[in-house]
Amino acid sequence: MKTAVGTLYGVSVGTGDPELITVKGQRLLQQIPVIAFPQGVNGKQGLAQKIIAPWITPQQKKLHLYFPYLQDEKQLKKAWQEASETVWQYLHQGMDVAFACEGDISFYSTFTYLAQTLSKNYPQVTIKTIPGVSSPMATASVLGLPLTLRSQNLAIIPALYNVAELDQVLSWADVIVLLKVSSVYTQVWQKLDSLDLLDHAFIVERATQAEEKVYQNLRDHPTLDLSYFSVMIIYLKHD
Amino acid sequence: MKTAVGTLYGVSVGTGDPELITVKGQRLLQQIPVIAFPQGVNGKQGLAQKIIAPWITPQQKKLHLYFPYLQDEKQLKKAWQEASETVWQYLHQGMDVAFACEGDISFYSTFTYLAQTLSKNYPQVTIKTIPGVSSPMATASVLGLPLTLRSQNLAIIPALYNVAELDQVLSWADVIVLLKVSSVYTQVWQKLDSLDLLDHAFIVERATQAEEKVYQNLRDHPTLDLSYFSVMIIYLKHD
Repeated sequence: MKTAVGTLYGVSVGTGDPELITVKGQRLLQQIPVIAFPQGVNGKQGLAQKIIAPWITPQQKKLHLYFPYLQDEKQLKKAWQEASETVWQYLHQGMDVAFACEGDISFYSTFTYLAQTLSKNYPQVTIKTIPGVSSPMATASVLGLPLTLRSQNLAIIPALYNVAELDQVLSWADVIVLLKVSSVYTQVWQKLDSLDLLDHAFIVERATQAEEKVYQNLRDHPTLDLSYFSVMIIYLKHD
Repeated sequence: MKTAVGTLYGVSVGTGDPELITVKGQRLLQQIPVIAFPQGVNGKQGLAQKIIAPWITPQQKKLHLYFPYLQDEKQLKKAWQEASETVWQYLHQGMDVAFACEGDISFYSTFTYLAQTLSKNYPQVTIKTIPGVSSPMATASVLGLPLTLRSQNLAIIPALYNVAELDQVLSWADVIVLLKVSSVYTQVWQKLDSLDLLDHAFIVERATQAEEKVYQNLRDHPTLDLSYFSVMIIYLKHD
């Protein structure tokens, strides 16, 4: 008899507070024998690994998958191939694998590349995803502000890549979320200053994590040394 | 001795599947003696009420709060005042109240108006929110597609109000989410048809609910009778 192939579950684990995982995500992490997550940088624990620590046991097999932080397509593809082979080793034995993903699994997630590579190499694998708490919503919650109301348009922009497009977006959006804002912060600050919008912008660094930090009164902060996990929300006034 | 005032917790309960509440949200719903939620329409259970049914007990006090579906500011304000008074009756006795909100509490939620009205009338009340799974992420998960990747810009539009602004968004967004699309579906369809984008659009009705339904091949559906809880995702091609 042929062993059935296991299922790959992409489990969103939320933004930092371990209790912000969904009940479904927690249940799957506790049931599934093999738990995969992105390997941390410089020997440190990665964020997803840290978040799920309270929910898993030493008995479960852990797969530390390597996803490099770089733009080179060739090296990225090599990493995705290797990660998908690592996961396949367990799936083809009929074992399910849960991949723990910080934030939401569909929202700018490395999981997508793993899933696409795996599907291409092994189309027989079933892949399921469990949605979760994403950083814009966690950021708004920490600020104690609504993200959006009623008829408001929302723009979400990975600022690292698209900071130049801010002008186009300003004409249209009511609320703007800038992800990956740390490396272009000064540029964003200058733009907001020129538009007299500094009092409408807020930053949360590491929302819902132990080291969470809120920045407001940005007028006083033309430069900031922010972590990668920093989200800015700009509330525009449209009269 | 004066009784301390209770805390109002805004608990996101996710999009339909009761297991898509966060562990934190579930814990609060099980601990807090008074549970509030938007009253259903025509005597039916509301969505939030349905979602939390497995997590609460008959012993907990239930507050069915009335939030009318209309645009008249005066009637809306009256409803928010009444809801905040209902909640205050328990808070001022030192009891905590959990308000169950479908989707995410910061994302186009009625909770915001309740919280703002309550804060204005009773500034001594502490309000906390628990983020959750929102409909764009649930929709992408149901489709088995990423919502966004890497450098992609995302636009989220309450289509009911802003369908006319679609043109402006097409120039900078890579992915567009249309909320409240049901009443303007034909208009959206015609626009997508004219731009040859019908093959790039997907709809999920009641994502993660028992009645969940996926619509693709929209070319075949110039009209559709969709529920209020329908989300469209449009994946644009930018070369």
